[in-house]
Amino acid sequence: MGKTIVIVGLGLIGGSLAKALRGFEDCTILGVDVSQPTLRYALEQGIVDRAESDPVKALAEGDVVYLCLHPQGIVDFMAEHQDHFRPGAMITDVCGVKGAILEGARALPETVSFCGGHPMAGTEFSGIQHALKNMFQGAHYILTPNEQTAPEHLELLERAARYVGCADVVRTTPEQHDAIIAYTSQMMHIIAVAVCDDPSLFQYQGFEGDSFRGCTRVAALDVSLWTQLFSMNAKALGTALEQLEENIRQYRQTIQSGDLTALSGKLAFSSARKRQMNRLEQASGAVGRDG
Amino acid sequence: MGKTIVIVGLGLIGGSLAKALRGFEDCTILGVDVSQPTLRYALEQGIVDRAESDPVKALAEGDVVYLCLHPQGIVDFMAEHQDHFRPGAMITDVCGVKGAILEGARALPETVSFCGGHPMAGTEFSGIQHALKNMFQGAHYILTPNEQTAPEHLELLERAARYVGCADVVRTTPEQHDAIIAYTSQMMHIIAVAVCDDPSLFQYQGFEGDSFRGCTRVAALDVSLWTQLFSMNAKALGTALEQLEENIRQYRQTIQSGDLTALSGKLAFSSARKRQMNRLEQASGAVGRDG
Repeated sequence: MGKTIVIVGLGLIGGSLAKALRGFEDCTILGVDVSQPTLRYALEQGIVDRAESDPVKALAEGDVVYLCLHPQGIVDFMAEHQDHFRPGAMITDVCGVKGAILEGARALPETVSFCGGHPMAGTEFSGIQHALKNMFQGAHYILTPNEQTAPEHLELLERAARYVGCADVVRTTPEQHDAIIAYTSQMMHIIAVAVCDDPSLFQYQGFEGDSFRGCTRVAALDVSLWTQLFSMNAKALGTALEQLEENIRQYRQTIQSGDLTALSGKLAFSSARKRQMNRLEQASGAVGRDG
Repeated sequence: MGKTIVIVGLGLIGGSLAKALRGFEDCTILGVDVSQPTLRYALEQGIVDRAESDPVKALAEGDVVYLCLHPQGIVDFMAEHQDHFRPGAMITDVCGVKGAILEGARALPETVSFCGGHPMAGTEFSGIQHALKNMFQGAHYILTPNEQTAPEHLELLERAARYVGCADVVRTTPEQHDAIIAYTSQMMHIIAVAVCDDPSLFQYQGFEGDSFRGCTRVAALDVSLWTQLFSMNAKALGTALEQLEENIRQYRQTIQSGDLTALSGKLAFSSARKRQMNRLEQASGAVGRDG
């Protein structure tokens, strides 16, 4: 018999992880959630092997624990349950900020291993009913190991990431992760909501194309989750947004100046950078989703 | 035998239109391009019935003419060939600005009909080799009829738009079109290139998710085409960008203030607007592409 994997929080990501981890190294998947309907759904749909509403009971069995709550929920959970993890347990999380999580993980005893994680996957929906087995297909899986991380824990998380279909596993520091994610993910969400705040939005219905759909898809976001993610990474996100505001202003001023040579030069520069980025990404084989 | 449809400019959109119009009301598709390899390709692939490098010869036969050149090319073509259109010919274009095109169309004689058009479809690629038969599937097709437009011309364009798979046909004025498109399409392209101008772009490789891909896909744009589109619509685009800069700044300042209630309130407002927009769009059945 393999290990018992406890998934705490059967939402979009927790539920997708449960589906995708099915069959991984003969493990048993034990789902934990505060919602009885969610636990029932997870059992009925065969998303988990077993369901448990009491985290203390579940943690007593957990060889591997994935914390799939909202960021503040993860921090609170680790503080509240620091003495309930099984000695030797390997604990990880899946959330989109890492500094605040690693800070919270200091509450954990030395008898357990912790490694921060962030599968760059998601959709604009939430809840287990939107969970997808192939959610992580082609996505990047970021890990932020530190002195709290046992080597065998890191190896197991890498095998699990490959198993659920990730294109690669990227190791970095929490600081680096948060600075980069401020740009590649959080800023995209701010752009999407800022675009939707245009006073005339609804007059534009009938004129949207794929560029509008692609840019604004994630604006239909989970308010409570993203309030936490943005505010827990306010400094890096603020810096990224200031840079973006400046880049947009420069484009606007060039367009307003009527200098076609300058505009053409700027577009050539930017579009070449995007093509280069596409080549790098194609070489890596990554094609995942990102919520 | 049906009418002869002349498609001037067998690029991404002209080529896709030729493919998609195949079989429409028993028409013959006659392709015109300055490039011999493009004409050969179009014939070999069966994209057109006939190919012609001399626009004067083609126009002499054209009952319906789709001008699928870059914006300035369309204006120049109408000026140069104003006397070569067949009397009774129905002329339209497919480009993303309408004010400058309608202005150019004043050069046409009273013996022909003109109606501005803009199928909101495209990809980040260019050239006939990227043309797609289903390019217009689910897209909006915008028409800007005026006193130069014969009623039967408008009816024919609407039937053709449905035939190529468009979800709907929207009629508007050139001014309205250009103001709206500045927001729903051009601004999305400026966002995409502005994001790619971040100094650290290439360090972020390995951390992109679908929100980044969705937002920046169109940054790999056709420089010459978009230099024209942006500069021919500089006033409306400048206004849209100023509003966007303000919306982003307000989000940034709220995040930096640390006021979670205000941030949560803003996100609830914006995300509700996006969900409402999604419902409107789903009700319309539109799902098309946009270059």
